[in-house]
This record gives sequence, C-alpha cells and structure tokens, in this order.
Amino acid sequence: MKAYLSRRYHFSASHRLHTEAYDDARNREIYGKCNNPHGHGHNYIVQVTFSGQVDPVTGMIFDLAELDAFAQTSLIDRFAHTNLNALDCFANHVSTTENLSIEVHRIFAGFPAAHLEKVHIEETSNNSFEYAGDAKLLRGTL
Amino acid sequence: MKAYLSRRYHFSASHRLHTEAYDDARNREIYGKCNNPHGHGHNYIVQVTFSGQVDPVTGMIFDLAELDAFAQTSLIDRFAHTNLNALDCFANHVSTTENLSIEVHRIFAGFPAAHLEKVHIEETSNNSFEYAGDAKLLRGTL
Amino acid sequence: MKAYLSRRYHFSASHRLHTEAYDDARNREIYGKCNNPHGHGHNYIVQVTFSGQVDPVTGMIFDLAELDAFAQTSLIDRFAHTNLNALDCFANHVSTTENLSIEVHRIFAGFPAAHLEKVHIEETSNNSFEYAGDAKLLRGTL
Amino acid sequence: MKAYLSRRYHFSASHRLHTEAYDDARNREIYGKCNNPHGHGHNYIVQVTFSGQVDPVTGMIFDLAELDAFAQTSLIDRFAHTNLNALDCFANHVSTTENLSIEVHRIFAGFPAAHLEKVHIEETSNNSFEYAGDAKLLRGTL
Amino acid sequence: MKAYLSRRYHFSASHRLHTEAYDDARNREIYGKCNNPHGHGHNYIVQVTFSGQVDPVTGMIFDLAELDAFAQTSLIDRFAHTNLNALDCFANHVSTTENLSIEVHRIFAGFPAAHLEKVHIEETSNNSFEYAGDAKLLRGTL
Amino acid sequence: MKAYLSRRYHFSASHRLHTEAYDDARNREIYGKCNNPHGHGHNYIVQVTFSGQVDPVTGMIFDLAELDAFAQTSLIDRFAHTNLNALDCFANHVSTTENLSIEVHRIFAGFPAAHLEKVHIEETSNNSFEYAGDAKLLRGTL
Repeated sequence: MKAYLSRRYHFSASHRLHTEAYDDARNREIYGKCNNPHGHGHNYIVQVTFSGQVDPVTGMIFDLAELDAFAQTSLIDRFAHTNLNALDCFANHVSTTENLSIEVHRIFAGFPAAHLEKVHIEETSNNSFEYAGDAKLLRGTL
Repeated sequence: MKAYLSRRYHFSASHRLHTEAYDDARNREIYGKCNNPHGHGHNYIVQVTFSGQVDPVTGMIFDLAELDAFAQTSLIDRFAHTNLNALDCFANHVSTTENLSIEVHRIFAGFPAAHLEKVHIEETSNNSFEYAGDAKLLRGTL
Repeated sequence: MKAYLSRRYHFSASHRLHTEAYDDARNREIYGKCNNPHGHGHNYIVQVTFSGQVDPVTGMIFDLAELDAFAQTSLIDRFAHTNLNALDCFANHVSTTENLSIEVHRIFAGFPAAHLEKVHIEETSNNSFEYAGDAKLLRGTL
Repeated sequence: MKAYLSRRYHFSASHRLHTEAYDDARNREIYGKCNNPHGHGHNYIVQVTFSGQVDPVTGMIFDLAELDAFAQTSLIDRFAHTNLNALDCFANHVSTTENLSIEVHRIFAGFPAAHLEKVHIEETSNNSFEYAGDAKLLRGTL
Repeated sequence: MKAYLSRRYHFSASHRLHTEAYDDARNREIYGKCNNPHGHGHNYIVQVTFSGQVDPVTGMIFDLAELDAFAQTSLIDRFAHTNLNALDCFANHVSTTENLSIEVHRIFAGFPAAHLEKVHIEETSNNSFEYAGDAKLLRGTL
Repeated sequence: MKAYLSRRYHFSASHRLHTEAYDDARNREIYGKCNNPHGHGHNYIVQVTFSGQVDPVTGMIFDLAELDAFAQTSLIDRFAHTNLNALDCFANHVSTTENLSIEVHRIFAGFPAAHLEKVHIEETSNNSFEYAGDAKLLRGTL
C-alpha cells in the first residue's frame, strides 16, 4: 500500500552560470544571457516527493511537520535570499538548476522518516528539472 | 501505442484528523492543528490518470463524457460539500488525504473504459498525494 | 507618488452556510449544498492591498515583515484550521465569504503602517469576493 | 547521474473532432460538442521532457537555446495560430489531443541533443494527455 | 456596505481576425498570424464582477446558483465549442477579445440580481481584456 | 466605449536591498534577508494595462505586436538576466519592486499607441506591487 506525498517549498535566489574551465567567450556561447557578469535570479519552486506505507492507524505516510522542520533548516535557511554561486556546494560546480536539483536531492535523501523518490525544481514557469538518482553516490559530488 | 489521459475534478470538503486509537494528547501531537475539534477544510483537486490504446479511428483513448458522468455520480455527488469524517468510507479510517487518495483510487479503478494508472490529490497548493496501488486488494479496506 | 502593495495569505477552514432567521427548508433553498448539515471547507486565499507613499530613502511603502507579523497574529492564528462557524465573529452572522471579507477588512484596517485599500478573498479558483468599504463603520458589525 | 529537463511551449490553435469513417450522427454521438461544424479551439500547453547525463563541466544536460530554436521551427511555426485539421499530419487522423501528443512526440524525438522521455499536452486546465511511446514505430503513422 | 463578487466561466472557441473593410494585405498587416485563413482558438476565461449590498440576513450579495444558471444559458450554451466568427454577434464585427468583452458585458448587464461592474476575459495566460462601459448604450452595437 | 488591455511580460533578475543612506545595521534591520550581501533574485511578472477606444473597424484598442516590440526593446532587453542594482536607474535608488514599478511605469507611459493605466509587478506568488501615478512627474526621478 505504497503512496506518495509531495510537498513544495519556495525560495528566491540569484545565480550566474559560468565555469572556470572555459574562457569568457566560450562561457558566453554556452550560457548566453545566463552568463551576464552580474547574474540574475529566480523564484525557485522545489517539490520533493516521498514514498512510503500509509500507517493503518494514523492514515499518514509520515508527519509533514517533521518534513517542514527539516526543510526549514536544511533548505530554506541555507538557500533563501542567497546568491547560489556564493554557497559552498557551488564552489566547484556551476549553479545550474540541474546541479541544484542534485544537491537538493542529496539534502532530502537524508530525511529519516520516508524514502525520497525525486526532487523537482521549477526555475521559471516554463523550465523545470527533476532528479531521482542515487543520492548515496552523489554525496561528495557537490 | 499506449497513451495517458488525465482529468481533474474539484470539490470542497471539510475534515478533522483524529483517531480513536489514541487519546487527545497523542492526537494533538500527531496531527497538530489538523486535530482542532471543529475541523477545517480544503478545495481538493483530484487528478485521475488513465492509460490505454489510442483508437485508430476515433483518435481517442476513451470518451471523456463517460468519465465525467462516472465522476459526477461516484465522486462529486458523494464528496462535494461534505464533511469527510461523516462519510461511510471514513467511519473507521482517518480522513487524511493519503486515505482519501486510496478511496478515490478504489472508485476510479471501477471505471470500465480504461485502465486507471494513478490518482493524485492536491490538498493545498503546496501539498499533494498520489496513489497508484492495487485497487483490488484495497476493496473493503476503506 | 502613491503606490500599492498587495500580499497574499493562505489558510484552510470549514464553514456551513445556515441562518437561524429561516427554517431548514428556506436555508436549503437559499444555500443549496453549502447548507449541508456537516459543512464543507476551502483553501481561502486572502489578498490585502495597501496604498501609500514610496519612501524616497528606503524605496518601500512599509515593511512587509511588520505586515506578516500582524497577519500571523490577527489572521492566521485566528482562522487557520478552524470551523468559521465556531468563531466569535460568526456567532451572529452567516460565514459567507462576503462576511469573511468584511471581517478581514476590519482586521487589516487596524494595521497601523499603511492605508488598507481593499481585501480580496478567493474561495475557490472560480469564486472570489472583494470588500473595500468603510472599516470604521463596520467595527461592531461582525 | 541521469536528470530530467522539462520545458513548456504554448500555442493557440483550433480543431474539430470528426472522422470520415463514420456518418454525422455517429460523429455527433462520439465527439459531442467537439464535433460542432465550425470547430472550436484551445491554448495548448506542450511540455516536453528529456533525460540525460548532467555534464560535469557545464552542469547542463544540454543547451536549452538549441531546444528553443528546434521548437520554434518544428512546433511553433507549424502549429501556432492554425486550424489543426488543415495540417498535413491530420489529413488522415482526427485532431484529438491524443493524436497531437503522438505527433509532437514524433517531432521532438528528432531533437538530437538529448533523449525524449515524454510529451505532455494540456488542452484545458482540467484535461491533459501524455505520450511516451516508441517514436520510431510511429514515424509515418501521423 | 457594498461588496464585490467575481465569478469565472471557462469556454473554448475558435476565431479568425479579419475585416471585410480592408483587403487581404491590410488584414494580414493588422492582424498578423491571427488572420491566418483557417483561424485558431483559445480557452477563454471570462470573469464577471458584480457589486451590491451584503444582505444582513443571508450574508450574500445574491445567489450564485442564479448567476450560474444565467451564465449557462446566456454564455456557455452560446459560445462554448463554437467558432466565434459564425455567431450572429460577430456577423458585422471582428471577433477580437475586445469585442467579445463588450458582448459579454452586454449579456451579463442583463442579469437582474446585481449590478455588473466589469467583464474581464483572459485570452491567453499573457493577454487579457476588460470592459466596464455603459451596457445600455451598447445594446445594438454588437 | 473605453476598454482595457493588459499584457504580461516575464523576466528574471537579481537584486539586493541596501541604501547608502544608512549603516549596515540599519540596512539589516530594514531589509532583513533582502539585505544579504550577495543578493538574491526573482522571476518578475510585469503586467501593463492600457485603456483606449475600441476601433470600430479593427475591433482592437491597438496592435499588440507594436506593444511587444516596444516591450522587447524597452523592458526585456534592459532588465532580463540582469542584476537590477547594476542598472543606471537604480544607481541612486534602492531596487525595491516599488521603485521598479515606478520605473516600468515611466517606460510604458512612453508607448505612443494607447494610454497607460497602471503597472502591476508580481515579485513572488504572494507579493505584488502596482503603480498608476503621474509618469510625467516621475521622469528624472529614477
């Protein structure tokens, strides 16, 4: 009787797409306006999806209040109102939303009360990214 | 040539999360404000997803008008403008949206014209639940 | 240089439309399914709009953090996860969203940092109500 | 380290559901108001989902600008502001959104930079269709 | 104690922007792709806003069920699943959403239970039109 | 026969709220997290509303294609994918959305084909700002 619970968290942050591996011309070519020197920003909408058994007594997969507390500390306090490029996890990785999805997946894979299925991030109303990979392999990657 | 058709139905209902299996203090601890004695409510958005072959002549998986008629009788007439706790299906189960998803899955699994893939219920703009389980096993559960 | 600032707050509550002034048959006639004995509920989206001068130094009309603190105490703590009918303000008034708009207008008219222009409440994605009246006259009404 | 990228494209078009295989009465029975002689229309929201490896240097699955250029030529220039029934691909197929999904899948399966996972088309806010089939088999079908 | 009630109705229709007053080249110049010979279509979202006194007993401005019945007959049955250009009201007027707003305003100005304040029509998620004019003057215009 | 046309434009940008008029502690107190040294960002949704007569022949207030061309040059090319603080117009003004609304109003007041009624900017799904002031007075202000 496996069911899925998805919850959305919102934060606003800025970023600039740029890799030290390439020169300025190549960066401009690859990232276009997203490489503009002063950066830009987004209202990110993060949706995390967990799966689990529905407890026959409580009727819940797990307690959402626990997830909210976890998200406040691990996601919102760390990413909201920041420049992603200035964060440790993007010191050696470009702050694309692909990479952000992987990092957010790594974070919520550590939530103890249920199994993380996937992380979906809406960067704009027309762009979104999803990551459902093996979080264990990724620890240390970002 | 399997394709998927999803359709959304909307209804407003109230509920209170409370289980007779626990005392008031434990209920309050588990359900927080959702355990408030007088209940609260939501605009539930139910999305049902069916799969099937696209008919080479009609270009349709099945006739949406049939699904709408089924949903009117089986879902809207039964759940809209109700207190979920007062319904038979929640007599012995807590009216969480996890359990509501299972019950709605049971209902639409009975739609004869196509195969039900999953039921997704948005409880609030930030909370949603999905159930894709074996409906046959569940008959009698809720 | 008057500008307008609108902010949305969300809460879930239940209600039942019923007036003691009429008998059951008339209530049923007037309110239809909204008169169902056990009530139903909504995810209310309250949008409050204030006007004011843009401060030439801060570039702000007023501090949103103050409004959020005010809304937490005066709106969310009072209405979220409740049955509206059980609240004092609806002891002698039907808990329609028209009346809820008037009450929410009365509340935010008391916000000291800016002038309240109007209150808009979305009851469902297709239904909304707005009140922009004289809050002073209304004190005591609801 | 497979990740998913989804992007939305919007276009407005008209269509009429009608098959030459059946007489008028049967068409009316099958398609209802969608068979009205002069047709009707929609704001279609097409979401294409691709999967791929996140490039360890660029942090991207592929370059969205390439996809946008491909979509402009292959999707928007061809479908936007048209009557679907007048297009070659619907000369022998009914212009249902099921069939449109299959055709759009065929189109984006030709995008060279990443693997197309699925095509999702929202016909109205309550109706959507998805196709994830084998595009190779379908070439020539529509 | 004047309050406002807004309600949304949805319908899908097709149209083609073209005026007999000009030749084809000029039509193409004025209307661009909206002049394509076979037309295109939209999911129109009509929002009508009424004002009135909140009844001190019922707590309502008027009965929404009456408005829904009126809208079904006067709006939905007439416009849904049609080609706007084929309707009488657009026999001598171009089926722009400006003109549609005026016609819908004329229709709802005839609703007897409350005062129509304005009609707002969303043609696409980025385009909308509003009309709040004197409906009496307009009778006969469209 | 005055009607209103509203059109939405979207862009992503970053900003940091900080005024040189105050010291760091006061800035932190006034702007909270929006004063974080590296800034953050948003997906801004700008809605501009124009009024005018509906042309009896074309059925249009004015040509949307003209407005789109104007917006591309004057709004999108200037603001999209930028850090607002690095723009000339915010050299001496804090990049609040109040001030952004005033600047965007100044820009669109220069659109020659219709009368600008107001500018509405959604900063996040819960925050929005509107400016309808006298644009002439403001020229030179920002």
